[in-house]
Amino acid sequence: MRLSRYFMPTLREAPADAQIVSHQLMLRAGLVRQEAAGIYAWLPLGLKVLKKIEQVVREEMNRAGAIEILMPTLQLADLWRESGRYDDYGEEMLRIKDRHDRDLLFGPTAEEVVTDIFRSYIKSYKDLPKNLYNIQWKFRDERRPRFGVMRGREFLMKDAYSFDVDEAAARRSYNRMFLAYLNVYARLGLKAIPVKADPGPIGGDLSHEFMILADTGESQVFAHRDLVEMGAPGPDIDWFGDLEPEVARRTSLYAASDEMHDEARFAAMPEDKRMTARGIEVGHIFYFGEKYSKPMKAMVTGPDGKDVPAQMGSYGVGVSRLVAAIIEASHDDAGIIWPASVAPFGAAVLNLRAGDAGCDAVCETAYAALTAAGLDPLYDDRDDRPGAKFAAADLVGIPWQLIVGPKGIAEGVVELKTRATGERQTIPLDAALKAITG
Amino acid sequence: MRLSRYFMPTLREAPADAQIVSHQLMLRAGLVRQEAAGIYAWLPLGLKVLKKIEQVVREEMNRAGAIEILMPTLQLADLWRESGRYDDYGEEMLRIKDRHDRDLLFGPTAEEVVTDIFRSYIKSYKDLPKNLYNIQWKFRDERRPRFGVMRGREFLMKDAYSFDVDEAAARRSYNRMFLAYLNVYARLGLKAIPVKADPGPIGGDLSHEFMILADTGESQVFAHRDLVEMGAPGPDIDWFGDLEPEVARRTSLYAASDEMHDEARFAAMPEDKRMTARGIEVGHIFYFGEKYSKPMKAMVTGPDGKDVPAQMGSYGVGVSRLVAAIIEASHDDAGIIWPASVAPFGAAVLNLRAGDAGCDAVCETAYAALTAAGLDPLYDDRDDRPGAKFAAADLVGIPWQLIVGPKGIAEGVVELKTRATGERQTIPLDAALKAITG
Repeated sequence: MRLSRYFMPTLREAPADAQIVSHQLMLRAGLVRQEAAGIYAWLPLGLKVLKKIEQVVREEMNRAGAIEILMPTLQLADLWRESGRYDDYGEEMLRIKDRHDRDLLFGPTAEEVVTDIFRSYIKSYKDLPKNLYNIQWKFRDERRPRFGVMRGREFLMKDAYSFDVDEAAARRSYNRMFLAYLNVYARLGLKAIPVKADPGPIGGDLSHEFMILADTGESQVFAHRDLVEMGAPGPDIDWFGDLEPEVARRTSLYAASDEMHDEARFAAMPEDKRMTARGIEVGHIFYFGEKYSKPMKAMVTGPDGKDVPAQMGSYGVGVSRLVAAIIEASHDDAGIIWPASVAPFGAAVLNLRAGDAGCDAVCETAYAALTAAGLDPLYDDRDDRPGAKFAAADLVGIPWQLIVGPKGIAEGVVELKTRATGERQTIPLDAALKAITG
Repeated sequence: MRLSRYFMPTLREAPADAQIVSHQLMLRAGLVRQEAAGIYAWLPLGLKVLKKIEQVVREEMNRAGAIEILMPTLQLADLWRESGRYDDYGEEMLRIKDRHDRDLLFGPTAEEVVTDIFRSYIKSYKDLPKNLYNIQWKFRDERRPRFGVMRGREFLMKDAYSFDVDEAAARRSYNRMFLAYLNVYARLGLKAIPVKADPGPIGGDLSHEFMILADTGESQVFAHRDLVEMGAPGPDIDWFGDLEPEVARRTSLYAASDEMHDEARFAAMPEDKRMTARGIEVGHIFYFGEKYSKPMKAMVTGPDGKDVPAQMGSYGVGVSRLVAAIIEASHDDAGIIWPASVAPFGAAVLNLRAGDAGCDAVCETAYAALTAAGLDPLYDDRDDRPGAKFAAADLVGIPWQLIVGPKGIAEGVVELKTRATGERQTIPLDAALKAITG
């Protein structure tokens, strides 16, 4: 993309009401624009990142056997009356009347809709397990939306729902999601810790939140150091085999956020294994059994011929929130440092003297080569000061900067800067392209 | 995908209230499920098609220089008060109050929001032309939603908005979209005719609707036969060069739908050039000048240093509507016939005796080979009657069916059926795979 034809409105300063660094950087780098309290438009750069995160989530869900559907943003109030949540949900639910005075709502979550879909088509244990997910915009009318997309009102969420014939099978579905989530975060360049979460009235141990480590995190996380250093399981595990040992290896080690922290258990660990850090919640998975299937009569016939309510679990990832969380975990004073997997462009080409025949020619060569290699480069071809170009490239956080100026051209070299480390090399163009394309 | 692990709920019969064939087939093939009047959930097969259409639209928009953003579903009423449309829009607009009693609405279209984004960042003719588009769910509270997703209330739309400094530049932006639209429809396997549309109060000739030909279409289309037979311009035109001749070649030939039909002009054409057919509207592009930029003060400084309101055009494609329109244009008594570009799966493997070692082995080989070739095959590995498998494969309309039965296995052959023509060949597996993968 040629920047002269693009739309990347960077700002020198963030508005004063942006309190946290991800919100400031998202506004300054032109990723989003606030349209109303907690409601954002996604500008081109932000949308590219959002779509890349969405695609990572999608691929890992598919790999773990979940099936994508898309539920509408608007839902019938009557379904929520069936589950009993319509009156309970409170002011965070956006209630709407259509022109015929029917009660609708903008879905804050989709347990009711997915249970209704399930009960309409699936009747037998032979069709289980099933895990249906969607990636859709949701709305929660937060009293005080803040921190940008970290706590917005309209937000993009991946929510998956598993259906099984009994609790043992539901645990297997839960385990698949537990491990798939770790793979998602690892691909996004994040260190994620699964911490025990409040299981609610149903009890049991099948409820985890995933916290990513970032100094600016909202919660305190306490964990066994081995858990932090344990890598993600990776794509090649047998997703329909026995995942219990792989899950147990992780859940047996202590990890909790402040709400569920047990100081005595923590203190009992060897001191060099105790890790405390700030964390941001970026996912929540839990098993809730018959909570919706029973009142909504989502029954399946078991192997014994008897009908039982489906055993359900739900699995949420805040996709738009992850954009901010990644920035919280990966930035410096100059701006964002995107992990390559979600960077809006793979490399930037900075032309320090646009209009100079030599610089233009080298830049065009570099731009064509990087495009052909699938790097999707951004070419800063604007007529602007070098300082402005350096600042913009650092701010928007593209992993590689290939810097082309008249002085280097005369010597047959370009400069290659790695955004994450700030390291610069002065090398021939060919070597720079080779370094970028691997 | 193994069908035994998938979710593809086909129905023997469509509900009685589904009046048109696309609605019937979308319900029977398990593409969508109605959640409320005019509001649908997209089941796995339907979502795959929807996403493929969306991606074709996206690629052609990008190619023509448009830039993708994402505007929220909810918009501030105040923006619509600025343009004067809040009170005018009528009952089709879904008006909403949030918990703090602020007026929101579920966007039926996005001229106001995009104009607000534009005016916040772009101030000079030097930053023009700009064309910003988004693919987002919209809501229009139709009094009588019907015909499935063809006339739904919550629908997916691609809407693009061009901004230029004067009318001549706006015409160039218009021309890019005019030709890009033809490329979109061609890639979707559709014959699309641009017909003159009512330009509204602004007048002029820059308003076209795109009608695709389908016997079940809602409108009558009258056109010069040469226009129908003219191919799409293709991707390789110079998008920022002079497109006027290429556009004029098409707009100079007569084409109109019933509303704008001029019988005298039509009758004046040679008889063998007069074509009449039924059509479905699947896109609308038009130039509206200062309609929003003037009241909303979206001004740009021209080359003469004077500020002028940006000249705008808008360009809409009903993405979810296209799923139905393609089915209207391409089906038979047995079901849907997807063009390869949007087929939910590239090929189906039908195992006529699942559990038989020979059949299973051949099917697994075929499934692995088609997967490796990127065909994304659907493997019907269910324990079911051959007749049920044939019917399901025909209904869901996958382009190729590779049929594996014990009799063929004994003779070292499989059957390969082309869905569109019904043609069947009995050939060795290798030859069948070669035919599918090209």
